[in-house]
Amino acid sequence: MPNDKKNKIVVIGGGTGSFVLLSGLKAYPVELTAIVPVTDDGGSTGRLRDEFGFLPVGDMRQCLAALAPENGQLRKLLLYRFDKGKGLQGHNLGNLLLTALEDMVGSEPEAIAQAAKIFRLKGRVLPVSKKLVKLAAQYSTGKTIISEHKIEVHKLKPKEKITKLYTVPQAKINLEAADAIKQADLIILAPGDLYNSIIANLVIDGTKSAIQASKAKLVYVVNLMTLNSQTHGFTASDHLKEIEKYAARKIDQILVNNQAIPAPIIKAYEKQEEYPVKDDLGSDSRVIRQPFLAKSTYQKPKSDTLKRSLLRHDSQKLAKVIINCLVHG
Amino acid sequence: MPNDKKNKIVVIGGGTGSFVLLSGLKAYPVELTAIVPVTDDGGSTGRLRDEFGFLPVGDMRQCLAALAPENGQLRKLLLYRFDKGKGLQGHNLGNLLLTALEDMVGSEPEAIAQAAKIFRLKGRVLPVSKKLVKLAAQYSTGKTIISEHKIEVHKLKPKEKITKLYTVPQAKINLEAADAIKQADLIILAPGDLYNSIIANLVIDGTKSAIQASKAKLVYVVNLMTLNSQTHGFTASDHLKEIEKYAARKIDQILVNNQAIPAPIIKAYEKQEEYPVKDDLGSDSRVIRQPFLAKSTYQKPKSDTLKRSLLRHDSQKLAKVIINCLVHG
Repeated sequence: MPNDKKNKIVVIGGGTGSFVLLSGLKAYPVELTAIVPVTDDGGSTGRLRDEFGFLPVGDMRQCLAALAPENGQLRKLLLYRFDKGKGLQGHNLGNLLLTALEDMVGSEPEAIAQAAKIFRLKGRVLPVSKKLVKLAAQYSTGKTIISEHKIEVHKLKPKEKITKLYTVPQAKINLEAADAIKQADLIILAPGDLYNSIIANLVIDGTKSAIQASKAKLVYVVNLMTLNSQTHGFTASDHLKEIEKYAARKIDQILVNNQAIPAPIIKAYEKQEEYPVKDDLGSDSRVIRQPFLAKSTYQKPKSDTLKRSLLRHDSQKLAKVIINCLVHG
Repeated sequence: MPNDKKNKIVVIGGGTGSFVLLSGLKAYPVELTAIVPVTDDGGSTGRLRDEFGFLPVGDMRQCLAALAPENGQLRKLLLYRFDKGKGLQGHNLGNLLLTALEDMVGSEPEAIAQAAKIFRLKGRVLPVSKKLVKLAAQYSTGKTIISEHKIEVHKLKPKEKITKLYTVPQAKINLEAADAIKQADLIILAPGDLYNSIIANLVIDGTKSAIQASKAKLVYVVNLMTLNSQTHGFTASDHLKEIEKYAARKIDQILVNNQAIPAPIIKAYEKQEEYPVKDDLGSDSRVIRQPFLAKSTYQKPKSDTLKRSLLRHDSQKLAKVIINCLVHG
């Protein structure tokens, strides 16, 4: 890495995938930007979106928490979820805080910038668009679903696939996000819900062209498990094919976990018909295989009505390999 | 002021009175401690107290906001009140934040200490007791009311007075608050609701003896207006008499406003039978008379169901005189 200025890393994704990546990367002297979708409409975020008409705050909150200056109380506070209280139950404090800030300052990008200042965050978070839109999926069965949350809870039928993802209405990219992508040295497509968290950013008008215009190395972190609502039966190359289709650019480095997933965790996922992503990438020279599993597993609080993943990538291991991609670019 | 160590100032009160004092004093190089009552049970605070069983957060929030490092977004954020949202309407973001922190760390004093650290506050805030109790008032009419909020909304009948204030059950002082009082160089009894905000601290078991044991100069800031629920018909000397009765110590300096209150404001108060506090302290050598009125008046948001004062003391003018009391002690 050159010493005169910091390398710029852009993380595109949402939810826990971006959280894990940013948590690891913030320890390095790089300039971090997280780009998150604006189509979340479930849980606490969905309620606030309906009641206030603001851009969804859930993915922002996760990224803000990841970028908190230390792994202490502030991070926990932003992720805190009320498990009681009339009307409060299920809400995240971070979501409420962003909603309050947005109401105060008039726009979500400005609210996030203010939060970054108040909390001295180690990076910035940008909504991929400033327009509040719905995510829509067309399925191979002819079915169409319009709502991120409904896509998330729709269990795929055998051989059913998402054939087209788009937003209703169409939305233009946030110019600040486009600039960040264009000026990046490295762009990471985070692990997470393939369509709802990652591709939901790529279908915004302007994201693809910004990625194409960027000289950044493009890194993709392949998911650990399939999702019964989106990637049932998907191998690593199926994931990659979809990513490259929507990004309209070839991925430069593909990060794949090669560590065995503990049997009890596999069993828990099997109950909902979700399985480890099979690595069929063979001798593809772009693949970096490493043991990427985090040691601890995530405990979902009772008040959280959304599905959350049990299994996570290890923040520090991912960050180390990614920084290495940057140095040996 | 000696240069070797900072002078210690303790502000006893609650709500907007303490907010105004702390906002002004934080500009000076002094060690600030705010001591607040634990008996608030109205509005957003009351709902959270009922639902979570924690110590009330409203007065804490006001003090935290006053101690925010600059007068910018953080202060506004802590005081932000939701004006819509099912179950959110009427809640302050600061109240929700303190409730979340309290649930995370297990006690309110620790929650406030964490908030002070996260937000780099210029002073500390201590609940007068760690026990969640109800405020009780006995009236000259024989009536007894148990609930701070009910005392606040009970309009006094002609000649009706509060003859005894106490808590149910009795509560011991928070030892940290007792130490702060004992070690203080100056103690200020803030303006504000005479019984609900100020004396509510003095009736806690141990406050009186801490004040008596302290070598601090004792300053009292007399209210600008009477309150129809607590001090109907009270002159300045009536206020002082009650304060000295419950503090069981003579006040050293009495700060009284001598600036005329604008007629439209007097008119607004008259509608609820509240009037300027008459200065009948004559040539009492302890009195410092100055124009203490703030220029702007407070606009109550629609979502705030509690009564808030229109008229305020000026933070900077009060602070200047108080610091002067300290220097020329």
